Amino acid sequence: MEQDNRYQKGINKLMEYTTTKNDDVSTHLKIMDELKDLAPEVGQYIIEFAYGEIYTREGLDNKQRALVTISSLVTQGTEPQLELHINTGLTAGLPPQEIVESFIQLIPYTGFPRILNALAVAKKVFRQRKIGVEKNNIH
Amino acid sequence: MEQDNRYQKGINKLMEYTTTKNDDVSTHLKIMDELKDLAPEVGQYIIEFAYGEIYTREGLDNKQRALVTISSLVTQGTEPQLELHINTGLTAGLPPQEIVESFIQLIPYTGFPRILNALAVAKKVFRQRKIGVEKNNIH
Amino acid sequence: MEQDNRYQKGINKLMEYTTTKNDDVSTHLKIMDELKDLAPEVGQYIIEFAYGEIYTREGLDNKQRALVTISSLVTQGTEPQLELHINTGLTAGLPPQEIVESFIQLIPYTGFPRILNALAVAKKVFRQRKIGVEKNNIH
Amino acid sequence: MEQDNRYQKGINKLMEYTTTKNDDVSTHLKIMDELKDLAPEVGQYIIEFAYGEIYTREGLDNKQRALVTISSLVTQGTEPQLELHINTGLTAGLPPQEIVESFIQLIPYTGFPRILNALAVAKKVFRQRKIGVEKNNIH
Amino acid sequence: MEQDNRYQKGINKLMEYTTTKNDDVSTHLKIMDELKDLAPEVGQYIIEFAYGEIYTREGLDNKQRALVTISSLVTQGTEPQLELHINTGLTAGLPPQEIVESFIQLIPYTGFPRILNALAVAKKVFRQRKIGVEKNNIH
Amino acid sequence: MEQDNRYQKGINKLMEYTTTKNDDVSTHLKIMDELKDLAPEVGQYIIEFAYGEIYTREGLDNKQRALVTISSLVTQGTEPQLELHINTGLTAGLPPQEIVESFIQLIPYTGFPRILNALAVAKKVFRQRKIGVEKNNIH
Repeated sequence: MEQDNRYQKGINKLMEYTTTKNDDVSTHLKIMDELKDLAPEVGQYIIEFAYGEIYTREGLDNKQRALVTISSLVTQGTEPQLELHINTGLTAGLPPQEIVESFIQLIPYTGFPRILNALAVAKKVFRQRKIGVEKNNIH
Repeated sequence: MEQDNRYQKGINKLMEYTTTKNDDVSTHLKIMDELKDLAPEVGQYIIEFAYGEIYTREGLDNKQRALVTISSLVTQGTEPQLELHINTGLTAGLPPQEIVESFIQLIPYTGFPRILNALAVAKKVFRQRKIGVEKNNIH
Repeated sequence: MEQDNRYQKGINKLMEYTTTKNDDVSTHLKIMDELKDLAPEVGQYIIEFAYGEIYTREGLDNKQRALVTISSLVTQGTEPQLELHINTGLTAGLPPQEIVESFIQLIPYTGFPRILNALAVAKKVFRQRKIGVEKNNIH
Repeated sequence: MEQDNRYQKGINKLMEYTTTKNDDVSTHLKIMDELKDLAPEVGQYIIEFAYGEIYTREGLDNKQRALVTISSLVTQGTEPQLELHINTGLTAGLPPQEIVESFIQLIPYTGFPRILNALAVAKKVFRQRKIGVEKNNIH
Repeated sequence: MEQDNRYQKGINKLMEYTTTKNDDVSTHLKIMDELKDLAPEVGQYIIEFAYGEIYTREGLDNKQRALVTISSLVTQGTEPQLELHINTGLTAGLPPQEIVESFIQLIPYTGFPRILNALAVAKKVFRQRKIGVEKNNIH
Repeated sequence: MEQDNRYQKGINKLMEYTTTKNDDVSTHLKIMDELKDLAPEVGQYIIEFAYGEIYTREGLDNKQRALVTISSLVTQGTEPQLELHINTGLTAGLPPQEIVESFIQLIPYTGFPRILNALAVAKKVFRQRKIGVEKNNIH
């Protein structure tokens, strides 16, 4: 059945972005659990539509999709989701330096305020994931 | 002298995004010419700061910078600049399919309206650049 | 098959918002036709996800869904989609006075500029649909 | 005198949205009290203009006005005001299911991030007002 | 009667921003005339609330109010209103250089796209009002 | 050397907005210190580009630049930066009443939600700086 298929494809894709030894990347699933009573279908739409249909498309790899998503979230200033997608981006293999560099690339297009707020979110995530950051040299 | 240096670095970088046989990519320079009388320093800031300092940084290649920029402009809905940066992205080597695919990736994050407007802008640019688009197969 | 089902449900629901003697409400389908070559799946996602899954849910009737949608589009300032959804709202039975009144209700929440632009869009649609508007008395 | 009249009409209308046994809906008045020293006229403008002139108009009932307002606030992402107007909407008789359903209707127009944040606000308000939420069945 | 008073105060204040030999500043009144049939009270709210209550307050002079307003409209990207308020600002005595300079001041806060669009609007208005603009020297 | 020059000009200008006996205005420098490891160049761009090139221009005085900046930040709803620039504005000599009055001027252009949030930020800053606020009379 098609719907099960989309759901399963979505879960599989989501796992590429979230399975890790690091505990705090399970945020995605915690969000859906939070919504379970209030609006269970929203979690289902995220899995089936966002992950099952959009993320599974060809044409961009996981790291590019994370970069595109993060760029939009920085621009919108929706910080809880930015925090989540910095995590999913890192799990998908996006190097921390590229995340920070994409913020810097956006300075001419959004101005400094959005970027300062995004850097504060990144700093929090990097610290949680014990990503070392030393004088312009993230590792 | 440092300032000349930034200016020259900016012009060189800008050329990587705009030099092409295709006439309509000179939009960037036309914009600056338009501003010459009213606010000549704005064109200078774009060259020195945006291109000379930000675009010339390491950490992301030209195509990634174009992808990040385009994602922000789609999210903001600033269409004249989106048109310009679809052009600069293409000149920098970003395949048209990846531009369209990045729009589709943004549907779960911005909703459909911004994406439909962005696709209309892309269609216009592709037509001007005689990029063939045939049933889900852009070339 | 589930996917066909979503597609068919979406088309049926879309028809409730667009079938009318008035020609210009076929805009929705024209938009999708425009996208056919460039990004055919986007039209499919609109039908399957937006119309087939979201609009077909229970809990709000067609007129309420149009009112909620229009309120968001006024706030975003995405005018091509606002034009489209004033049309779909009218076809779904939302009285023109309620559309104008919802704009006025938004003045304290978005300020006057968004509302003046929305009223200009409504005026254009009402004129195309030959909806009489006489001194505070739309009919 | 006209001004007193607007003020009194505004207070009366505001009461329709806020009088309840539930303590936490007095937020509106607390906000104005907070502003009393800094900018007392802002509270007055909210009562006289927003409630006395806009909310008292004919053409939409209290529940429709709350739905329109909530849809705009979800789209803007201004969460303190969204929290307030979920409360006023509930007091005016808008069923909790319709509030959640209007958020879901907005997914195709704003994307998921705004909606996830709005659901978190709704969850907080429903809990404060002891509105039971059980597996897709709010009561 | 209070309401008449607000209306008359609003008209008087509006005139400070729009009375001029230059024809195209009557845009404000043309907008309201446009709205007369569709939503006549919106024009009334602009005169009574925006001009009669807000603009007539003490604490900022006409030029400061225009500067604050223009800064918000550049940030929002609502160009028809920006065009109007560049006109009202000029009529109220705001020098064209200060308008352009305020756009440049906003580059670090909004990024270049909003500012480039704002400059194009200013250029159009200055040309209509025959304000000479010569190499960084507007007069 | 030009770059040093921009940096020194930027630091000097920044000091006009931040040097004060009041401790909490050093926020600006604390922000940059926070960024030192993660993205040290962002602090440098703020000093060299925003302060060294933009703020040092002629055409608007420090208080006008603060007013323009604050108006944009209120409109964007980026509250951490609004808090910072209410502080820098006060240090540059912008009277607290003019800050509050500029918020009130923006009500017709952004609606009430952004303004209520901005007033809450101003109240916090005024309290920290022990600026007395008594019934519509800030001193």
